[in-house]
Amino acid sequence: MTERVVLAYSGGLDTSVAIGWIAEETGAEVVAVAVDLGQGGEDLDTIRKRALDCGAVDAVVADARDEFAEQYCLPALQANALYQDRYPLVSALSRPVIVKHLAEAAKYHGATTVAHGCTGKGNDQVRFEVGIGALAPDLKVLAPVRDFAWTREKAIVWAEERNLPIDVNKKSPYSVDQNVWGRAVETGFLEDIWNAPIEDVYSYTANPAEPRDADEVIITFDKGVPVAIDGETVTVLQAIQQLNSRAGAQGIGRLDMVEDRLVGIKSREIYEAPGAIALITAHQELENVTLERDAARFKRQVEQRWGELVYDGLWFSPLKDALDAFITKSQEYVSGEIRMVLHAGRAVVNGRRSEDSLYDFNLATYDEGDAFDQTLAKGFVQLWGLPSKIAAKRDLQRGHS
Amino acid sequence: MTERVVLAYSGGLDTSVAIGWIAEETGAEVVAVAVDLGQGGEDLDTIRKRALDCGAVDAVVADARDEFAEQYCLPALQANALYQDRYPLVSALSRPVIVKHLAEAAKYHGATTVAHGCTGKGNDQVRFEVGIGALAPDLKVLAPVRDFAWTREKAIVWAEERNLPIDVNKKSPYSVDQNVWGRAVETGFLEDIWNAPIEDVYSYTANPAEPRDADEVIITFDKGVPVAIDGETVTVLQAIQQLNSRAGAQGIGRLDMVEDRLVGIKSREIYEAPGAIALITAHQELENVTLERDAARFKRQVEQRWGELVYDGLWFSPLKDALDAFITKSQEYVSGEIRMVLHAGRAVVNGRRSEDSLYDFNLATYDEGDAFDQTLAKGFVQLWGLPSKIAAKRDLQRGHS
Amino acid sequence: MTERVVLAYSGGLDTSVAIGWIAEETGAEVVAVAVDLGQGGEDLDTIRKRALDCGAVDAVVADARDEFAEQYCLPALQANALYQDRYPLVSALSRPVIVKHLAEAAKYHGATTVAHGCTGKGNDQVRFEVGIGALAPDLKVLAPVRDFAWTREKAIVWAEERNLPIDVNKKSPYSVDQNVWGRAVETGFLEDIWNAPIEDVYSYTANPAEPRDADEVIITFDKGVPVAIDGETVTVLQAIQQLNSRAGAQGIGRLDMVEDRLVGIKSREIYEAPGAIALITAHQELENVTLERDAARFKRQVEQRWGELVYDGLWFSPLKDALDAFITKSQEYVSGEIRMVLHAGRAVVNGRRSEDSLYDFNLATYDEGDAFDQTLAKGFVQLWGLPSKIAAKRDLQRGHS
Amino acid sequence: MTERVVLAYSGGLDTSVAIGWIAEETGAEVVAVAVDLGQGGEDLDTIRKRALDCGAVDAVVADARDEFAEQYCLPALQANALYQDRYPLVSALSRPVIVKHLAEAAKYHGATTVAHGCTGKGNDQVRFEVGIGALAPDLKVLAPVRDFAWTREKAIVWAEERNLPIDVNKKSPYSVDQNVWGRAVETGFLEDIWNAPIEDVYSYTANPAEPRDADEVIITFDKGVPVAIDGETVTVLQAIQQLNSRAGAQGIGRLDMVEDRLVGIKSREIYEAPGAIALITAHQELENVTLERDAARFKRQVEQRWGELVYDGLWFSPLKDALDAFITKSQEYVSGEIRMVLHAGRAVVNGRRSEDSLYDFNLATYDEGDAFDQTLAKGFVQLWGLPSKIAAKRDLQRGHS
Repeated sequence: MTERVVLAYSGGLDTSVAIGWIAEETGAEVVAVAVDLGQGGEDLDTIRKRALDCGAVDAVVADARDEFAEQYCLPALQANALYQDRYPLVSALSRPVIVKHLAEAAKYHGATTVAHGCTGKGNDQVRFEVGIGALAPDLKVLAPVRDFAWTREKAIVWAEERNLPIDVNKKSPYSVDQNVWGRAVETGFLEDIWNAPIEDVYSYTANPAEPRDADEVIITFDKGVPVAIDGETVTVLQAIQQLNSRAGAQGIGRLDMVEDRLVGIKSREIYEAPGAIALITAHQELENVTLERDAARFKRQVEQRWGELVYDGLWFSPLKDALDAFITKSQEYVSGEIRMVLHAGRAVVNGRRSEDSLYDFNLATYDEGDAFDQTLAKGFVQLWGLPSKIAAKRDLQRGHS
Repeated sequence: MTERVVLAYSGGLDTSVAIGWIAEETGAEVVAVAVDLGQGGEDLDTIRKRALDCGAVDAVVADARDEFAEQYCLPALQANALYQDRYPLVSALSRPVIVKHLAEAAKYHGATTVAHGCTGKGNDQVRFEVGIGALAPDLKVLAPVRDFAWTREKAIVWAEERNLPIDVNKKSPYSVDQNVWGRAVETGFLEDIWNAPIEDVYSYTANPAEPRDADEVIITFDKGVPVAIDGETVTVLQAIQQLNSRAGAQGIGRLDMVEDRLVGIKSREIYEAPGAIALITAHQELENVTLERDAARFKRQVEQRWGELVYDGLWFSPLKDALDAFITKSQEYVSGEIRMVLHAGRAVVNGRRSEDSLYDFNLATYDEGDAFDQTLAKGFVQLWGLPSKIAAKRDLQRGHS
Repeated sequence: MTERVVLAYSGGLDTSVAIGWIAEETGAEVVAVAVDLGQGGEDLDTIRKRALDCGAVDAVVADARDEFAEQYCLPALQANALYQDRYPLVSALSRPVIVKHLAEAAKYHGATTVAHGCTGKGNDQVRFEVGIGALAPDLKVLAPVRDFAWTREKAIVWAEERNLPIDVNKKSPYSVDQNVWGRAVETGFLEDIWNAPIEDVYSYTANPAEPRDADEVIITFDKGVPVAIDGETVTVLQAIQQLNSRAGAQGIGRLDMVEDRLVGIKSREIYEAPGAIALITAHQELENVTLERDAARFKRQVEQRWGELVYDGLWFSPLKDALDAFITKSQEYVSGEIRMVLHAGRAVVNGRRSEDSLYDFNLATYDEGDAFDQTLAKGFVQLWGLPSKIAAKRDLQRGHS
Repeated sequence: MTERVVLAYSGGLDTSVAIGWIAEETGAEVVAVAVDLGQGGEDLDTIRKRALDCGAVDAVVADARDEFAEQYCLPALQANALYQDRYPLVSALSRPVIVKHLAEAAKYHGATTVAHGCTGKGNDQVRFEVGIGALAPDLKVLAPVRDFAWTREKAIVWAEERNLPIDVNKKSPYSVDQNVWGRAVETGFLEDIWNAPIEDVYSYTANPAEPRDADEVIITFDKGVPVAIDGETVTVLQAIQQLNSRAGAQGIGRLDMVEDRLVGIKSREIYEAPGAIALITAHQELENVTLERDAARFKRQVEQRWGELVYDGLWFSPLKDALDAFITKSQEYVSGEIRMVLHAGRAVVNGRRSEDSLYDFNLATYDEGDAFDQTLAKGFVQLWGLPSKIAAKRDLQRGHS
């Protein structure tokens, strides 16, 4: 029986060429798998047809948008996940869900190998292969671009020789990855980190510098899940989509940063993530209102580690599972409403209300009704400072620093 | 010999009344100490005169603006210190420098006691008293507002009865604390956390929603110290002042948040810190370019703990000193230039260059000149994922989750 | 209706006297509550009768040994909880379970107040009062020893005057707190931290220096729970008791340390915890075998914070709950057997086996059957070291350090 | 001009054969470098001669024992460095010092390449190559055992064919690495993790189970450096050596553990580190006495990360340098004396004294002279518990768990 290879298929030049190349090189049958994560562009049927035209024995297309929103973007939102305090893990979140579909397709089609089109200097190869290793440890992995040094030029020649139905001239000057959680752009002139991005780079967001009216939005959360926007019930996917649209129209969520890749180099990245940034901003402030202080402080460490793990390709890992247990527990009371103004590139919270609030007006107020017993403070302050006071006495006597 | 009390003096109603009250209650002589941290308002001579008119035996006024900028704001900048990822520690940084001047004045004037006007439900009492405990552990502390339940109403009656030279009608609807690093505002109607702030609350920043032209600035750092703006050499104080002015004119640095006070309650705070936010934004991105990945990751934990410690009144503490040693070491190569656009409430980095950069164009580029050896990646990915793969195999066999 | 006070009752002098004193001072009826946590000593009926004889309107005695073992000691075991890397939280674990019984008794008897006999310089007052605040926030707290400066001398006079049925001459030279998880001793001559403890201090452990035969034990864990000893099924309580006996006979679990109390001072403490130390030692090594590396590394931070929280009286707190969720998830595969030699003060693991082991003989062995692909290593090493290599090149060129 | 290769030379079979093999395969001249780290065994002259006999053009032997003790073991002591809370980093500490000598020799002899004899599944390859990458990033690395799959069997044939002056029959059943900081043993029968080690495995330590008299020792530290033993001034090297001898005679410092290697597998390791364990035990307790609480708590995280970094081969890295700055600062007052009993496998502290002590008898004592103001406690406890109390009220009202 002929071996089968499942290929992560985007519809583009590289992976279209890979179908035939893998078949020729290995003698295997190739099954193409394309997953819709809200990246827009061509419809899935077109992509499916192209895969078959390029020689795939079968082509699987899956609408995984709700799955992606609920099982991948939502945990990231609850973790306020921002790698290097900035990047909402757009591509990093998408790889595990693609891996899941690849592993399922491999099982269904009896494949022994999974193939992907990643290069050897990016993070995505790690996310693909470590993910496959976790979900289907017996599958082999094929990475033609990396392990056989495929280039765009070679791919064009190959496609033209075989007359594949691909427009080889359609080349963006930018290298782009996008899904409903955001959009990542790399490109030649941005590799000089002194160069500023130009407006042409962006697609999810309008120019924040252009004058326009502000947009006020109220987001309702229930246990850390966004469940309504301006009072209208939404799914997680709809929440992201609507905020992509409304926050994107205000130019919110543009990022320009130098980033530490797992493979050990720094790279320059441009991101757009209007919905993600708006949702995380709202969620963070609702946590300020509903999380107890010590829990909030420790959660920041959990959030950082969560972000690093997911960035580093370890979505499917025991530590990720245990951090998720912590985060899920922490969300028990993260319920309420956040009012936010979207304008000129910024999502600014200006109101919050929650039946689970830990903000206590009577303890906080300096006006009438103050319930805080100030006589307790003296003892607190004295004992709070006692260790540093004893140390200071020692230091004064012993003469250092 | 008559006992002496050193009083942290602001020139306002509460501490003006305190001069006489302390003298009457305790029989001590009161020395007033006022410190200029760039808070603006009345000049120091006027304040000095008022203290004497209110009964102080002496009044010390100190211009500590450079000291504050260099020894307090600069470490906060190098720590990218943002309590709860937001608040640049405006008031928290100022208390230790005031404490230092109080302790010096107490020593100089032979005082046995230090007095402050803080309430019992805020953070500042802690910062004052723990600071005094560390610098001068033998001094006693007097806190009339907290320990003798002084109120504004009582203070007005007292001032009028004694005909003190204070305008008791001059009452801001807001409770404000400000210095060159920023401005903090609390007020009655903002204690309802659903209420949005109004434009009237702000003083350091223009309305970011008003259309105006963008302002581009280049900030030069040398080992983590801002040393030039647009090529002109500046002191740290000047850097903060100039950016307060330029970023403030663009509405940058407004914050509206619910915050966890050390005394155990949540409060709602409005801040303005245009210079601080602009400088921290620039410094963070320069660190992205010049700090090695593992160092940068761990530094985030150091930064968080540093911010908590300083917020919690532990500026003078052994842990703070040791964290500073870490941070100072980390700044060794944080040198270079950051180009930033200031506009509409946002400070956005769009260029960075540094002779100490760890960004390596030849390793990062996907174009010609690529020096990254992609053949190394396969082995890396395999071993990187090995622990989670082994765990995944176990989990699949043993049937949990 | 007469007010009621629920008193944490030990049967000793201080709390026996407190019954009558509280009644006289406050006019309230006193309900005494004694909880058996395996501390040994008098039986509960004797204690109950004494409380009534001393004037309690009711006396509640509860055998909470299994509850304590399963709901308090077990989470500590799974957290490998050792405050300052040493102290297994003997007293810290017992306070929350006592608090739970006090809160229940207060509810049942309609009490408005809870009373305890702790001093003002220890940790236990915090654990009692913060615990009560969390479980029954409306209850008031009375702490006669602390707030009314009761001393042993005053108590003796009071008891003799009223002819209370207490032997006031029975005074240990040591201040002791004990339960099934261990025993804590403080005493006068040990307050000089240069003084060594003497054999007379110990009660749970034999002298480890005396020659005796070693004892080998096999402990079986199921998902982090000790379920069998030498093949015989045990409850958690039985596991602790049997190991207290067997490890105690070998002198295991003695600790002598200077400790950081929450109230800001350092104290010197002697502990004995033979069962706790033996179980934690075994559990740690089983985790070495069954936890994935990243999970194990992060769990150490969780363990440290868990221990600090519980030591600091925050058993009932949102952060503790969220850390527990992490720990519970981590225990999913902590199953298997640990063989351990108990001898001369040490519990030494010398064998481990588990069907959930992540130790893979074929990957680890240097003998025949080696399945580890060494060709992967070169790429791994190169990319692993790339960030520090790039930094080193920069440092060499730029001439610092 | 002929290329030169610097080889890390141990004098054993593998590296002796490597001299000739490298010369033949590459045409390069081989310079052998052997470093004395207190591992004992053959003297350096013998080793030097053998290298030359095996074909080295030059052989460098260096006595680096003091350098190793002062610059590598001492920082580990000050970090209380125990990987996985157990392993004092015996081999991990030695690789960077060897690397330093290799890099110096390479520079001196104009070599372009460094060679080592590590396999591809251990940690040492990483420590060598990452270290070389940091100190001399332009050097190439040759790893014959790993990259050319050399085995012991091949080496014997090669040696016999060429009549090399090596006793090929002298084969220990154990794979051993040792230096003054400790000794590591791996071996065939221990790869079954249920097998207990036998007495024959050990060399640095006597059997702790054999009856003998206890040995009491007083160690004096000055700013974290051990400077005297029983009052006699010692160098760091002498401190380690003397305690290796005295603690080793009592069977102290044996470890048997399953360990997480950097390359992703778990391995079983036996260690002996009598001096290291005795010194770390003493140092930890002196820190209990002299470090302020918050500093001590955070230092534990620094210690863990320090241990992981060094274990993982990142001795020469920016993060290591910054952690060292923290640790050095923390040691400023770690001065004083620790009295310790060495007996039956345990080093037990039973006395400590220090002029820099933060233990304050008058604050700690329950006897006469108590200087602790208990009236402060009530306020402290109330505000300490306020956040969890507010959260508990919310939880009770809102009905979750």
